[in-house]
Amino acid sequence: MSLFVPKPYENAPKTTEEAIQLCVMANRILSNEGVLDAFGHVSIRNPENPNTFFQSRSLSPEMVTAEDVLELDLEGTVLTKTDLPPYGERIIHAAILKARPEVNAVFHGHPHPVIPFSSAGVPIRSVAHFGALFCDGIPLYDDYDVSSGMIIVNKEEGERLARVLGQANAVLMRDHGCCVVGENVPHMVMGAIYLRDSAAIQLQTLALGQPKYLSYEESRAAAKVMTSTVAMERAWSYWVSRAKRAFPDL
Amino acid sequence: MSLFVPKPYENAPKTTEEAIQLCVMANRILSNEGVLDAFGHVSIRNPENPNTFFQSRSLSPEMVTAEDVLELDLEGTVLTKTDLPPYGERIIHAAILKARPEVNAVFHGHPHPVIPFSSAGVPIRSVAHFGALFCDGIPLYDDYDVSSGMIIVNKEEGERLARVLGQANAVLMRDHGCCVVGENVPHMVMGAIYLRDSAAIQLQTLALGQPKYLSYEESRAAAKVMTSTVAMERAWSYWVSRAKRAFPDL
Amino acid sequence: MSLFVPKPYENAPKTTEEAIQLCVMANRILSNEGVLDAFGHVSIRNPENPNTFFQSRSLSPEMVTAEDVLELDLEGTVLTKTDLPPYGERIIHAAILKARPEVNAVFHGHPHPVIPFSSAGVPIRSVAHFGALFCDGIPLYDDYDVSSGMIIVNKEEGERLARVLGQANAVLMRDHGCCVVGENVPHMVMGAIYLRDSAAIQLQTLALGQPKYLSYEESRAAAKVMTSTVAMERAWSYWVSRAKRAFPDL
Amino acid sequence: MSLFVPKPYENAPKTTEEAIQLCVMANRILSNEGVLDAFGHVSIRNPENPNTFFQSRSLSPEMVTAEDVLELDLEGTVLTKTDLPPYGERIIHAAILKARPEVNAVFHGHPHPVIPFSSAGVPIRSVAHFGALFCDGIPLYDDYDVSSGMIIVNKEEGERLARVLGQANAVLMRDHGCCVVGENVPHMVMGAIYLRDSAAIQLQTLALGQPKYLSYEESRAAAKVMTSTVAMERAWSYWVSRAKRAFPDL
Repeated sequence: MSLFVPKPYENAPKTTEEAIQLCVMANRILSNEGVLDAFGHVSIRNPENPNTFFQSRSLSPEMVTAEDVLELDLEGTVLTKTDLPPYGERIIHAAILKARPEVNAVFHGHPHPVIPFSSAGVPIRSVAHFGALFCDGIPLYDDYDVSSGMIIVNKEEGERLARVLGQANAVLMRDHGCCVVGENVPHMVMGAIYLRDSAAIQLQTLALGQPKYLSYEESRAAAKVMTSTVAMERAWSYWVSRAKRAFPDL
Repeated sequence: MSLFVPKPYENAPKTTEEAIQLCVMANRILSNEGVLDAFGHVSIRNPENPNTFFQSRSLSPEMVTAEDVLELDLEGTVLTKTDLPPYGERIIHAAILKARPEVNAVFHGHPHPVIPFSSAGVPIRSVAHFGALFCDGIPLYDDYDVSSGMIIVNKEEGERLARVLGQANAVLMRDHGCCVVGENVPHMVMGAIYLRDSAAIQLQTLALGQPKYLSYEESRAAAKVMTSTVAMERAWSYWVSRAKRAFPDL
Repeated sequence: MSLFVPKPYENAPKTTEEAIQLCVMANRILSNEGVLDAFGHVSIRNPENPNTFFQSRSLSPEMVTAEDVLELDLEGTVLTKTDLPPYGERIIHAAILKARPEVNAVFHGHPHPVIPFSSAGVPIRSVAHFGALFCDGIPLYDDYDVSSGMIIVNKEEGERLARVLGQANAVLMRDHGCCVVGENVPHMVMGAIYLRDSAAIQLQTLALGQPKYLSYEESRAAAKVMTSTVAMERAWSYWVSRAKRAFPDL
Repeated sequence: MSLFVPKPYENAPKTTEEAIQLCVMANRILSNEGVLDAFGHVSIRNPENPNTFFQSRSLSPEMVTAEDVLELDLEGTVLTKTDLPPYGERIIHAAILKARPEVNAVFHGHPHPVIPFSSAGVPIRSVAHFGALFCDGIPLYDDYDVSSGMIIVNKEEGERLARVLGQANAVLMRDHGCCVVGENVPHMVMGAIYLRDSAAIQLQTLALGQPKYLSYEESRAAAKVMTSTVAMERAWSYWVSRAKRAFPDL
């Protein structure tokens, strides 16, 4: 067995083709790790054109292949010539990628452990160093257009959500789920997985006693460690390896 | 890999053969998703004759094949010529399909997270948009014939249960489980899975603080989104894909 | 695919060979369903000689094959000519099979959800009809020989445990686990699985509110339903089918 | 199928090659049992030179093969001629193996159920005999160099952690995880798995009522039973068997 060497392009795809491959991988990883199920989606900014992004057509994440990936602009218009319908909530990704030029990857989903916090209005705080990615806090969105049925499908609501997110790395959506952003795909994937895990652990800690949360300084330093190249490569190669075992077509 | 296209018949089977195939698939999906185990069952109305329905003979759902599916009438009488015994609780399905002509698929099972609500008499309410399918409330049945051992096997009790269900999409059964109904099989499958998930999340939310449940208007709008064709096809194709991976004979 | 027909001998083996096969199957099922792990064991009375029983040599249940099964007498003496060591806790099985002539199968293990009840001294009561197997109550053993390290390896302690069990179908062992008995192997397997599940559900119900437990009459009637031939055959064939999928050597 | 016989070298490797094989196996077992994920690591003292130890290069535990294992000294210096980077937290292992000459294997990881105890400052105590391995108590480390981001990467902090561990078998690390030590690899593996399980059960017991913890004498006797050759061989062969099924390359 040859030694594992992470592909250097993975943190920063240079071509649209690499970005599409990375989009497929993120969909499969997040399905395989139980963060996405039938619903939810990811997006990745086009490395060749910052005004467009890639995202699957309307399809469950674990079924996404390269042929399913569409190119969209920052208004959410599909640029790919196709009859395949896009996600209704692509507007979330368009709005966030527009508002946050340094963000290159966005997750939206409904991991179960985050929903209680979104519903009870209890802030998610770090009880573990791997939850420190969100050291700047996680705001709560609760400004729905009632008629849209708790999903974000019009431009105005997408912009409201992006405003509530602000400069944070994640936003909770009341009785719905969350969004997580990253500078690159592995950051976003790590954020989505560890927000879920962190919320689950915080729930249990609150049942046990008074948590001693990470202080702001501890969180900042821990976030730096978690997003270092060495940590990102370790985690990314682990998730890829598990996804490939689960999905032999990868 | 050719692109996935959902089969148009799946939401509304036109022939008995399609209905039987759909019955098998619902059994396998609900087993694979952990909603059914050794016990519990589903039924589907005959698209060629609204006065009969299809259901497996007495067999664990994950073992059901097309040859195991029986045709029964709305009194629960087996019409298929066979010596294979039917489920004792077929009476639940017969009574509900008789009382609710617009319902074409019924689930009865014992998903663990719903049982605490049935026992403590705490209403299940929506803390997530995918729980909004039950926006009209979930009544609680607790009017057992003691001698039947907490199962519903006589006609009178089947009718009582159907009356408690009324026009709702689900009914809890005290210290036992629940029934979920749908206009079609994918609706029923989605309802069964999301009732289980919703109950589990509500349990955790109540441990954390005061939930801000979906309002009635929010629920109604969210239920419409969840049961739209696009959402149903996304979810159904996901569950089918997973069931096929788990059960190679499908 | 030929239709599934349960083998008629399974509920009541007639020969030592059938009993040994059933012993292997019970070990594999309970491992596969997560009730047994590295530790814990089952026993089955010899249908050809009620004064002996079969049990694996000292080995984790999921690894047990027919060659690993020993014959022991009701004092716990190994009768099989072999150098393979038996379980230290075989004394539990010997003592119970001696004290309860109508019992033909015994489980001892450490399913996690029962341990909190054993430690906090909270009685396990039925919040679901499938927990009704224990309608006569589950006594708690807490009369350890300290020097034995919380396990039951001497004859006197085995007899004390059997006395605490009395005529019940299960006994909790403080900070350790439980024993479950059955008239036959499928009864014992069902009891072990549903005691675990029932305890887990009761834990969640108590966190939610005041359970309305099954009344004594409801429990008695439900226990009768659960142990009827039709229910036992349904469940047993399900567990066997799953174990065969998990362990291709079966 | 030939009868299973545990390899006699496994508890006490005699050669560096055996130690490296054992290091690989410990990584795979702890991944397969869900105690390690992308992060965390194990170490094993060199049986041919007590002043060095073996540990994987920086790599997720489930991906570790013999070629990935490095030799390091008790200052954490890599002795193997290689460009492959070691773990940053190798300093934990170096410090503990230096301070505790009778310890030959060290685990560091982040099993979720231990984190609430580390954050809320609630001691982990034994509610089950298999948790008795920690009868001397589990101290809590909370003396971080803030600038290191809640991980232990400098020599001084490694020494502080080793001092807090003292003569105990495990140490919690606030909002981070734990370390577990063992006389040999199977001891360490058992300790890591059962500390995780024990913490999860204690969490549920505290939600239910007042636990009756193992007394000191009960714990001491139970710890002796759990670490006896017969118990260690049973558990080790079980974990190896499961890891081999999960990872066909083993």
